[in-house]
Amino acid sequence: MKSTLVFFSFLLFFFFLVSSAYPGMKRQRHPCKNLVFYFHDIIYNGHNAANATSAIVSAPQWGNLTTFASPFRFGNIVVFDDPITLDNNFHSVPVGRAQGMYLYDTKNTYTAWLGFSFAFNSAQHNGTIHFIGVDPNLVKSRDISVVGGTGDFFMHRGIATLMTDSYEDSVYFRLHVNIKFYECW
Amino acid sequence: MKSTLVFFSFLLFFFFLVSSAYPGMKRQRHPCKNLVFYFHDIIYNGHNAANATSAIVSAPQWGNLTTFASPFRFGNIVVFDDPITLDNNFHSVPVGRAQGMYLYDTKNTYTAWLGFSFAFNSAQHNGTIHFIGVDPNLVKSRDISVVGGTGDFFMHRGIATLMTDSYEDSVYFRLHVNIKFYECW
Amino acid sequence: MKSTLVFFSFLLFFFFLVSSAYPGMKRQRHPCKNLVFYFHDIIYNGHNAANATSAIVSAPQWGNLTTFASPFRFGNIVVFDDPITLDNNFHSVPVGRAQGMYLYDTKNTYTAWLGFSFAFNSAQHNGTIHFIGVDPNLVKSRDISVVGGTGDFFMHRGIATLMTDSYEDSVYFRLHVNIKFYECW
Repeated sequence: MKSTLVFFSFLLFFFFLVSSAYPGMKRQRHPCKNLVFYFHDIIYNGHNAANATSAIVSAPQWGNLTTFASPFRFGNIVVFDDPITLDNNFHSVPVGRAQGMYLYDTKNTYTAWLGFSFAFNSAQHNGTIHFIGVDPNLVKSRDISVVGGTGDFFMHRGIATLMTDSYEDSVYFRLHVNIKFYECW
Repeated sequence: MKSTLVFFSFLLFFFFLVSSAYPGMKRQRHPCKNLVFYFHDIIYNGHNAANATSAIVSAPQWGNLTTFASPFRFGNIVVFDDPITLDNNFHSVPVGRAQGMYLYDTKNTYTAWLGFSFAFNSAQHNGTIHFIGVDPNLVKSRDISVVGGTGDFFMHRGIATLMTDSYEDSVYFRLHVNIKFYECW
Repeated sequence: MKSTLVFFSFLLFFFFLVSSAYPGMKRQRHPCKNLVFYFHDIIYNGHNAANATSAIVSAPQWGNLTTFASPFRFGNIVVFDDPITLDNNFHSVPVGRAQGMYLYDTKNTYTAWLGFSFAFNSAQHNGTIHFIGVDPNLVKSRDISVVGGTGDFFMHRGIATLMTDSYEDSVYFRLHVNIKFYECW
């Protein structure tokens, strides 16, 4: 009986030996933390300086800084500081800020490249979450990457799924963000 | 004999205990996945709007948006959406798009800071790979980082080695990219 | 006695089984490497082209490229190539370069979003370290993320703590950077 146990032990040892030596092998895809937020972007259009939460700061040679470039906003960089809310109401008390930039980089559809962070300093959350991703605006659900974090999100990594929850002309949009962390520390 | 096995078991246990408790310790540098691509960049110069895959969208005060700034393009940000091919032929069927930006940040040589992604939606690959890196253009082989991914590249990390495969004036360049993933999930 | 050992072995086995299967569980927060640097930024203001290490390359519609925009520099993107030194003396021999960009994204305080790298090519260090983060300039100590690295910093991840060590008008600042790596490979 003991020899069976010892043998079984060795099988398990071997399993751990192999899995430790090859960290690139398949890991469990079970989120260790899951958070859902909305954020709200009001783009400066030349007339809304008081309310705007973002502004076009770069444009290609044929563009300008108050209207998106044609075709498909190609070449525009937008800098933003958007309120993050727990529900889809723009007037809800923000729990943090979405800060960074997006840039439109495609000539035949709306695709943005995103580099931004969530910054929290509230009762609910404290710290930052950093995102990098490709955002084909017209696709219903888009996955981007969480590449790091600080504070409550120390060293976290994961995937965030974006969905456009509202879109009004070229001035307002609201994104639904479902963050699934797979590395939590 | 059994006691020897048990003792040996404990040695191994100890090894795993230590290696689990110190995740920062050396890991095996064996790629879990390796992919090679080319991508092609045609920079807008004021006359090639139809063919251009990228455009200068920012320049320093002394620059403009149709020619690179002097010296060494310092201060130019370029937004791009470049075809990715499996061989070095610009006319091959693209398997994906390289999308994002590069910016020149050095006054005494050509160095670009890269923030971009590969976006795939084809029979071969589906998903995105995100890159951050320093690209000293004149160095033969430059390593940049893969900081995340989605889809087929869920949570992946690794290193990509860039080599300039072709360069024509200030309008066209082609990069050879060798991606080695070391975290594959 | 042996049966006790075997039983104990199984408890430990179970622990490793669980911890391997749930990589998202808490890990030890013990740095595997710790480095401290300073870097120095001289912003182009229209009169200091020879000394400047950075330049404003984007501004909102109401701004320009030689003075920061009002309010709070909102919408300015700065590209930089700053010397890295081991002490706080600007004239010390640089051990590397801090290269990339920062952008101001807040309308009611000074907050920068950072995307940059440290590039080393010296006796001390060789390779690159990549940072993404939120930098509320007026906060004494700010944590940003190390999202990857190459060379000596192959696949590294960690946290960097920024402190403003000196600040002179809108032209010069010096940051103290304490990098703690938690994944070292």
